[in-house]
Amino acid sequence: MRTVIVPVAASILTACTSAPYALRDMGSFHVGGRDVEITGKPVKEVVFTPGGVPAKVDLNGTYSVEAMYVQYFLPANRRGAVPLLMWHGGGLTGVTYETTPDGREGWLNYFVKQGWDVYNSDAVERGRAGWAMFPDIFKGEPVFLAKANPFERFRIGQGAGSYSPDPAKQKLMPASQFPVEAYDNFVKQNVPRWTTTDDAIIRAYIALVDKVCPCVILFHSQAGQFGFKVAQARPDKVKALVAVEPAGVGDAKQAAVLKSIPTLVVYGDNIALDSRWPQIRKNGLEFVAEISKAGGKVEILDLPKAGIRGNSHMLMMDRNNLQVAGLIQDWLAKQGLYRGDTAASASDWADEMRGNLSNTPRGMIMR
Amino acid sequence: MRTVIVPVAASILTACTSAPYALRDMGSFHVGGRDVEITGKPVKEVVFTPGGVPAKVDLNGTYSVEAMYVQYFLPANRRGAVPLLMWHGGGLTGVTYETTPDGREGWLNYFVKQGWDVYNSDAVERGRAGWAMFPDIFKGEPVFLAKANPFERFRIGQGAGSYSPDPAKQKLMPASQFPVEAYDNFVKQNVPRWTTTDDAIIRAYIALVDKVCPCVILFHSQAGQFGFKVAQARPDKVKALVAVEPAGVGDAKQAAVLKSIPTLVVYGDNIALDSRWPQIRKNGLEFVAEISKAGGKVEILDLPKAGIRGNSHMLMMDRNNLQVAGLIQDWLAKQGLYRGDTAASASDWADEMRGNLSNTPRGMIMR
Repeated sequence: MRTVIVPVAASILTACTSAPYALRDMGSFHVGGRDVEITGKPVKEVVFTPGGVPAKVDLNGTYSVEAMYVQYFLPANRRGAVPLLMWHGGGLTGVTYETTPDGREGWLNYFVKQGWDVYNSDAVERGRAGWAMFPDIFKGEPVFLAKANPFERFRIGQGAGSYSPDPAKQKLMPASQFPVEAYDNFVKQNVPRWTTTDDAIIRAYIALVDKVCPCVILFHSQAGQFGFKVAQARPDKVKALVAVEPAGVGDAKQAAVLKSIPTLVVYGDNIALDSRWPQIRKNGLEFVAEISKAGGKVEILDLPKAGIRGNSHMLMMDRNNLQVAGLIQDWLAKQGLYRGDTAASASDWADEMRGNLSNTPRGMIMR
Repeated sequence: MRTVIVPVAASILTACTSAPYALRDMGSFHVGGRDVEITGKPVKEVVFTPGGVPAKVDLNGTYSVEAMYVQYFLPANRRGAVPLLMWHGGGLTGVTYETTPDGREGWLNYFVKQGWDVYNSDAVERGRAGWAMFPDIFKGEPVFLAKANPFERFRIGQGAGSYSPDPAKQKLMPASQFPVEAYDNFVKQNVPRWTTTDDAIIRAYIALVDKVCPCVILFHSQAGQFGFKVAQARPDKVKALVAVEPAGVGDAKQAAVLKSIPTLVVYGDNIALDSRWPQIRKNGLEFVAEISKAGGKVEILDLPKAGIRGNSHMLMMDRNNLQVAGLIQDWLAKQGLYRGDTAASASDWADEMRGNLSNTPRGMIMR
């Protein structure tokens, strides 16, 4: 009997994997946050629905604030040794990694298909994380971005004045890879954001890492400081860092804490043509140079130097987004965090790897 | 050869279906919204990241506002004749239908597993839809809810004063099915909401219906008015309505527009013990009575009358949430919108059904 059963089982595995998304589970949770007491406010009567029944809303009381939202997709055929966490940039949400504005496959789907357990999230005060009253709880005011702003600041267009609602009048960056015909869909993904909530965001990310790691963290733009700082707070739980155009960094004086965590930093194109990005990249490179100096392993993936032209700040949405994802995937595999073949025991292997990783805080020795 | 291949293919199908989530696709998009011009505001210099490079933010310009967010999960073995749209209630997001606050399977996963194409969404100004500046664009102020509020208003506790952070002091509704030990996780799902955005929300939902329907719409609480009103605006595109404790209704004078759409209305328990819910239910029943009078087919699923006790307003999170989902599933199947067996041609069948439905605006005749 046995010789008959084995080939059938193998066929099933292959079929499920190729049936594009075969997941052993998917779901979501909120994590982190704290309770805050609010006093001295009025009691209001609110009619929530036209013609509805009025409800008493006492604005005083205890509020649950500063939690974050996490959605996970766990492939049936797990090949990543640890979960892959995806952290979005400022004024955005986890939608960053989902379907691109022009309807193509995003990095979330790509890495799930590769067999990574992916945890995609909305940081504190963004998207499904919710936000708290201000100025009572959040300090300062939210920042709203007009449609022109990301176009001019994310190296889609050539800086100030490059945006126009008329495509014929837009001044695009050379060889631009951004799907500019879907720019209106991209700005719909933008959400208001504060500039005063960094500490709360970091606290929630640490709570997430404590819950689901050891892990790889892939982070973008504003999350540059979150990825590096959270890894500095929990170095034993982070097995690799992928910094995608980080706009902030960690604590340079504590750079040595990251020396056992392989780090990849990815930059797109046309940085020299922008007014701010040369300095932002310089800040990022100076920070990771400190990690290297301490004996750490840092690799810089400068896409134009690798012959890949035209990438904007939103690499994960650019037309060649899967090409860039493939380079990240290859780098992760080189770190020994990925099993590329389709052996039926891949999940057992991942369990074993996770066990190894938990027992080896310095990581990477299983390669 | 052929006689060998067929049984293998059948085995694969079964295995993938039971490998809990076999999806042919998953992804997300934003839909609807409009552009608004803002003038007379200052130009600010914003440092988005500590130590970062200041950016000029001109608050004047064109803003993209009032779009909504939609995430979809399309099972490989499709059994629903049309997509199932899930619309959340007030102060909440699509997270309502995801994993329950205590970590159990929610209705999203349940219906995907049953083979429905599910489109779960965040309405305008909630979650990943983002929100617009106020009072410039949104009128009025956002409503924030203290932790006690949903506990006392959603029939988890017995009304005013029933909440306490100390579980021993909470006054729960009789036979309560809400996973009260995870109440703190539930309030983390709450997001601020306005009471002035109904028209914008309806416009966006209509844009969604125009994009993905014919469909079934399952809607909860505040979305009572959205589900009924959008169905009244697009009656030919809605093949069934599932109103879960609707807190608002459609236009009673136009009730006859809904007469060809089978409608199920679901109510939980302990309504008589609440100060507002007897009237809210009365409003709902009066509205759907108008549909019945016009010759429509309305069924009321009053859970305690069916012997199912203790359901709160958040039925989809209650301990018996899958039992309630099963009753909805059975009702949908009775409407001829579901193919229960696992025949390999289920997707062809669904395509055919969609074709039939498109050609038969009155719906339901294919049963």
